[in-house]
This record gives sequence, C-alpha cells and structure tokens, in this order.
Amino acid sequence: MPPLNETHDPNLKSWVATANADAADFTIQNLPFASFRRVGTNEPFRGGVAIGDQIVDLAAAHAAGIFSGLAADAADAAAKPALNDFMAMGAGAWAALRLALSRGLREGSAQQDALQATLVPQDDAEYAVPAQIGDYTDFYTSIHHATNIGSLFRPNNPILPNYKWIPIGYHGRSSSIRISGVDVIRPNGQTRPAEGQAPGFGPSRRLDYELELGLFVGPGNALGDTISIDEAEAHIFGVVLLNDWSARDIQGWEYQPLGPFLGKSFSTTISPWIVTLEALAPFRAPFTRPEDDPQPLAYLTSQDNHDRGHLDIQLEVFILTQKQRQEGTPPQRLSHSNYKDAYWTAAQLVTHHTVNGCDLRPGDLLGTGTLSGPDEGQQAALIEITRSGRQPLTLDNGEVRSFLEDGDAIILRGHCARDGAARVGFGEVKNTVAPAKS
Amino acid sequence: MPPLNETHDPNLKSWVATANADAADFTIQNLPFASFRRVGTNEPFRGGVAIGDQIVDLAAAHAAGIFSGLAADAADAAAKPALNDFMAMGAGAWAALRLALSRGLREGSAQQDALQATLVPQDDAEYAVPAQIGDYTDFYTSIHHATNIGSLFRPNNPILPNYKWIPIGYHGRSSSIRISGVDVIRPNGQTRPAEGQAPGFGPSRRLDYELELGLFVGPGNALGDTISIDEAEAHIFGVVLLNDWSARDIQGWEYQPLGPFLGKSFSTTISPWIVTLEALAPFRAPFTRPEDDPQPLAYLTSQDNHDRGHLDIQLEVFILTQKQRQEGTPPQRLSHSNYKDAYWTAAQLVTHHTVNGCDLRPGDLLGTGTLSGPDEGQQAALIEITRSGRQPLTLDNGEVRSFLEDGDAIILRGHCARDGAARVGFGEVKNTVAPAKS
Repeated sequence: MPPLNETHDPNLKSWVATANADAADFTIQNLPFASFRRVGTNEPFRGGVAIGDQIVDLAAAHAAGIFSGLAADAADAAAKPALNDFMAMGAGAWAALRLALSRGLREGSAQQDALQATLVPQDDAEYAVPAQIGDYTDFYTSIHHATNIGSLFRPNNPILPNYKWIPIGYHGRSSSIRISGVDVIRPNGQTRPAEGQAPGFGPSRRLDYELELGLFVGPGNALGDTISIDEAEAHIFGVVLLNDWSARDIQGWEYQPLGPFLGKSFSTTISPWIVTLEALAPFRAPFTRPEDDPQPLAYLTSQDNHDRGHLDIQLEVFILTQKQRQEGTPPQRLSHSNYKDAYWTAAQLVTHHTVNGCDLRPGDLLGTGTLSGPDEGQQAALIEITRSGRQPLTLDNGEVRSFLEDGDAIILRGHCARDGAARVGFGEVKNTVAPAKS
Repeated sequence: MPPLNETHDPNLKSWVATANADAADFTIQNLPFASFRRVGTNEPFRGGVAIGDQIVDLAAAHAAGIFSGLAADAADAAAKPALNDFMAMGAGAWAALRLALSRGLREGSAQQDALQATLVPQDDAEYAVPAQIGDYTDFYTSIHHATNIGSLFRPNNPILPNYKWIPIGYHGRSSSIRISGVDVIRPNGQTRPAEGQAPGFGPSRRLDYELELGLFVGPGNALGDTISIDEAEAHIFGVVLLNDWSARDIQGWEYQPLGPFLGKSFSTTISPWIVTLEALAPFRAPFTRPEDDPQPLAYLTSQDNHDRGHLDIQLEVFILTQKQRQEGTPPQRLSHSNYKDAYWTAAQLVTHHTVNGCDLRPGDLLGTGTLSGPDEGQQAALIEITRSGRQPLTLDNGEVRSFLEDGDAIILRGHCARDGAARVGFGEVKNTVAPAKS
C-alpha cells in the first residue's frame, strides 16, 4: 500500500483555482489519469492528469521538459494513447510522476507558467478507454448484492456455500468496454419461453445498470506465478467507476450452466479518470467479517489486509429520464453505498485471481461486482430496488420504472472524504439508453 | 462460404515433395498460417505458411517480391508477428494470397527457386500464438459432451431447457492462451469442503483436458451491429486445435453461480497452424437436428447453413505418459470424434455472439467446447471417460488414470479426408503436465 506522503497533505492548494473548491473531485491531492484529446479533432489520444476543471497534457508537459529522472520516464510512458506501459512501470514510477505533478501544480510553483501552457480545459476534451484492456474480470464482492439477487431465485438459500470462501468472479467481455458519454444500445436477444413455447426474441425488456468499481492492473505476473496477498496492492494502478449494464431477461435465460454472456457483453462503461491507489491512501478502512462467518483461507489473509484492506469510497447512482431532462429536473438519486462494505478486498481479488497461476497483464480490468450496501436505499441495481420488477419504483416526477427505458441516462458518481484529508473524487460515468436496432 | 476453386484440385502436387505424401497434413491444398521464427534465435516472429515439412517465410517471400497486387498486400500484413491485420483483410485478400502460394508451390512453378530460398524447415522453427487474441469465448456445442457432463450432476435432467435454443457460451481468459509445446503447470486452488469443514487448498487432483477446436475471427463488427447467419462464415478466418485444460475439483467448487473461472484460466493451448476456412471448403457437412428437437430461431437459420453448415473434421486425443515415454511406447489414443456432430455450427456461434450487438475483433478466438461424439470411444475429456473418476481408465501398459498425472502429455490431432479431395490436416497441439508450484 502506498504510504502517506507530502502529496496527501490536506493543506496543499493549487494555482488552478477550481481544484481548491469545496466539492472539487480533482483536487491537487487526487491527480487522476485519463487518455484524452481535444474534442472534434483528430489529435492522437494521450495521457492527461486532471486538476480542477483542467487537464495537464502529459505529452506536452514531457515535450516541454518539465519532468526529470524517473518522473520524466513515467511521463513519457503516460503520454501514449493507452496507459498500459505506464501502468506496467509500477508504484515507484507512478509516485515519482505524482510527486512532480503535485509540486508543479502547487501554489507558488516555479513551474506554473510551463505547466499552465500545457493545460486543456476538461470542457474541451473527449476521452478514450485509458488502457488496452487485455482481459476484463468481473467479481461479485458485495454479499448484500449477492443476498438480494440470490433471494430472488433461492429465497431460503440466497448465499451459496462457496460465497464466504471464494471471491466469486467470472471472465467478462473486453471488446465492448466503452467510456462515459457513449449511448448504450438496448440489446436484442432470446428470453425464457412460456412452458412448451419457443423462446421470445427481441429487444430486452429488463435492461438494468449495476454500480461497480473497476480496478486497473499495474504490473502483471508471469503465467504460473502467483501474487501473494502482501504484494497484491502493488499490482493495482487505480480505480474507476464501472457500470455493468445488464439485460436481465437475456441473462436469466442464457446463464445456466456457464454464467453471464450476452446479457452483459453488449456494453460495459467506465469513467474516464483513473484515481490512483496512492491518491486513495488516506481512505483505508479495516477488513472485517461478521462474527459467525469464516475467516479467509491463509492465502487470502494478511495483517495489513485486515487493518487497512478496504477503501472507503462513497458511491451514488442517479437517473435522468427523458422527461426529467425536458422538465429541467436534476438527476434523481437512486441509491448510495460504500466500497468498504464489500465482502472481499481489492487485494484479495488480485491474489485469488492468480492463485492458479493465471497471468494478469498491465491494463487488465477487475470489476468489483455490484456494490450494494446493507441498508435500505443501498441497492445498487434496479433488479434489487424493484424486486425484479415486481415493486416498480415511482420517481419524484411521477414516472414509474421497473427497468430502464429508452432515453434514460444512468450516472454513477463516487468520492472519498473524511476529516483531516482533502476530498478525492472520481467524476462520473454517464450513459444514455438508446433504442434497440431492428 | 468460400467456393471450391483451383486451389482445391486434388491432383495438384507440390515441388516440396513432403507435401505430396499420403498422410501429409500440410498438402498444397491446405496452406495453413502460423507465426514462427527459427528456434533459438531472437528473430522476430512472422507469418509463415506450411507446405509439407517446410514453412514459407512470408516476410522473406514478400521482401523478395514474389507476390503482386492484393496477394502482396496480404503477404505484407501476414508477415507481421501477429496475424490480426491479415485476418482483418477478409476473404478476398486471404484467397488472393492462397492462390498465389498454390501456384508458386506447384510442381513446375516458375517461382520455385525464389520460394525455395524462403523455406524454413518446421524442425527448425518455434511458434507464437498467431494473433493477439482480444477476447476468447468458449462455447458448449457438443450435446454429447453436455449430456455426459450433465448426467454426472443431474442424472434425470442432463440437458437444461436452454441448450437446444441457445449456443451456450461464456467468456474465457485470453492471457493464458499458449501454443503447443509449453508445459501446463498443475494449478493450485480451493476445493469443495467436507460438510462443516473449511475448503481444501492445494494442487488440483482432478486435472483434465478437453478436445476442442478454436475459430479465429477475421473481420469484426462494430459495437451495436450484428452479423447475420448468411454473413457469419465470412467473419471466420480459420480453425486450430484447442485444449481447454480444466481442473475439475477447482471448477466444481467455484463455478456456481457465475460459471468457470480459475478451473480454466491457468492454461488453454492451441496448435500453431491455422487451417483456413477456404482450405476446409471441400469438407462441408449438413446441419441436421434430431426429429424431436426444435429448429433454431430465425436469426440462427439459413438454407446455406443447413445444407453445408458443419465441417467434417476428424479429431483424436492421445496420451503419452512418463512411463510410456520411458518404455518407448507410442502415444495411446483415448478418443476420436468429429466436429460435424456438434449441435451448433460455426456460423451460428458467430451470429449468436453478435445478436446483442457485442463486437468481435479480428483475432478473437471462439472455442467450440468439448467435441465429444455420440458413441462409445468418442468422449473427449477424462471426466467423461472415467465417469468423473469413478471408473478409472487402464492404459495398454497397465497404468491407471482417473485424471492426469504430472508428466502426462496430451496430444490433440485433427484432419479432413474424403474421396475426391486431398487430405487437409491440422498438425497437433501437444502439452505436458508439469508439477504444481508450491
């Protein structure tokens, strides 16, 4: 785990004034990475770092000779269209560049003029998926989500026997991962037939979102090697918001016996800004288990993981319907939850994933699974909120939703805040449902 | 489907004499593609085409100006370390290069001397995975395998209701796909506990192989678009042998409710030579369904697919144990089967995969699933042969196997043969089990 250092000092202010606002996501203590270019141009995508409402263009800053030593090597790698090479460099290089940026962006920095010249307003930018994602794995780490879903299918036995021993996960689809802003096209597919009938076929009628986080892998491991629980966090570069769009009717008919497939692979969307694990260092939370639950097996256990294994990240889901948009109503919050309530830590996901020798590669993405919390109002997908559509939700403007309708936008937001630390935010991932193609 | 043309003429002979042998896999009618280099060198991997016991070095042949027009463009793309760009070019480019190679390698060709200078003996070559595989999907297309496996878990209901409607598939792991020849390290993992106990942990004791074919995707589709059943074969570049190594004890404990994960992701191996769909054109077989079974939904149905939807590919599995190796015994055949007995065609897999708008990319790999046949001796995994280890197999030399032991090599072979066509073979994928790491 990256240690606290001068970059986390809550008293630091930036000469980019918008970074110092009370509710700013992109404070000088955050410094998240994305792949961007000026919108409407054919510029190459390149790495950038957010500060307030601006982006430090890392290619321009590197070309201007602003960085030196390891920070310059890191900036060179991070200036490419995809951040894989930068992710592969590891925590030392990430920290060197972060420190150089923190110092350069501080009030009074001698580099203010040079860095100022590289800034691109976020309002003028568009984003790419920030890495070439070799493999995408989705986990199932919220026992509250697993219980809510399991109780729909197995009311008396919602949690399967393996759940409390194994961080359950499955391979997802890499190709259909997209960035915030793109439309999500309602998928077509087969649905469960009535007894004796042929299956239905057509646009999904039970389209849903899932609030998740995505962990980008930094340095990988060779096939056959494992990553121990104490080494695991050094293999995580950072965290994004992730919407695991789901067609419940397609999923329900297809998923036995080999798991989710076309009910998921039509679209997964992520927020453009990767908040580094180092930026999250002030927001650790202990890993605990209910008293009656088993402790993890030895390979998933370490004192460090117990004391600070979780991340205290506050999460929210909002909906903005076509009607709300026309009314000028702001998005309505559907739920809120916190990553620290997950049953398994990020480190445990990495270690479990490699315990069989499976090789992770820089830029691989690990989804946490739907991050529902224990309380009412913390259900992180419509299937949970509406009890599989049986208890439709009435929005404040009178609209009713069992599942998503065309024109609905879903917005995921996240941030970290506590006394004695500066706020660190994730921005958002916002995508709108487009009608099915015929 | 590529039409029959002069490259399929069974009377063609090559000036590479080994291509004309009776049991030659790599006849002049075959011309499969791989990524290779001279073993023990640091040469870049590049595309090659097999002819007899030789390889046409496409980089050298292209540099020598042997090809012209579209064939030259195709050879340029195919000379790269990974064949993705060549795969993306589509059937016209593939056919042009194939025709140029067929003409150049024929007895009496004026290009004999020029091509001869590019040949590398296969004995001197090593191979790479021939494409950068963006996503790997594994299907479950043998109803015989599904029945054999299902009956182990659900004796009265082995085939689930969706099986006859949906080509069942799941996302596999891309990173751990390797080529024939590498050792497969026995994975560690959790296994199902006795009642009230903690799960077991350690090396898998139920390590198994699965005989499959892998389909390499050619041109892809944009996210949101679909590939119709009539277009589907134009999106398949070619076919390899695929061993879907499986740790049954890890798989059995982890796979509910989201499907196979660590029980598979430690290793998948493929044969180096991709046999093109064009080379397989003489070996089509009709798609049929048992009379009482439902016909596929409209999007999975076309007359062409019915008449010639399947591929008649004969498949075999062999084992070579450490003891057999020491005795000088040849590998013993464990089973034989045929791809034409699959329940779903290759075209149906492509169309179903994209019906929700999921984007396929050039170089993606689709596994067929374990290709067991209907008869005794056609069970394409040990879990089927030994009834999950309950009926151990006694080899000819007296050794007994429930599952694989360290030092066992598994060899998959395949070929096409019929009257009036030249033999087209796949070579083999052969990998040996190495002990688990501690």
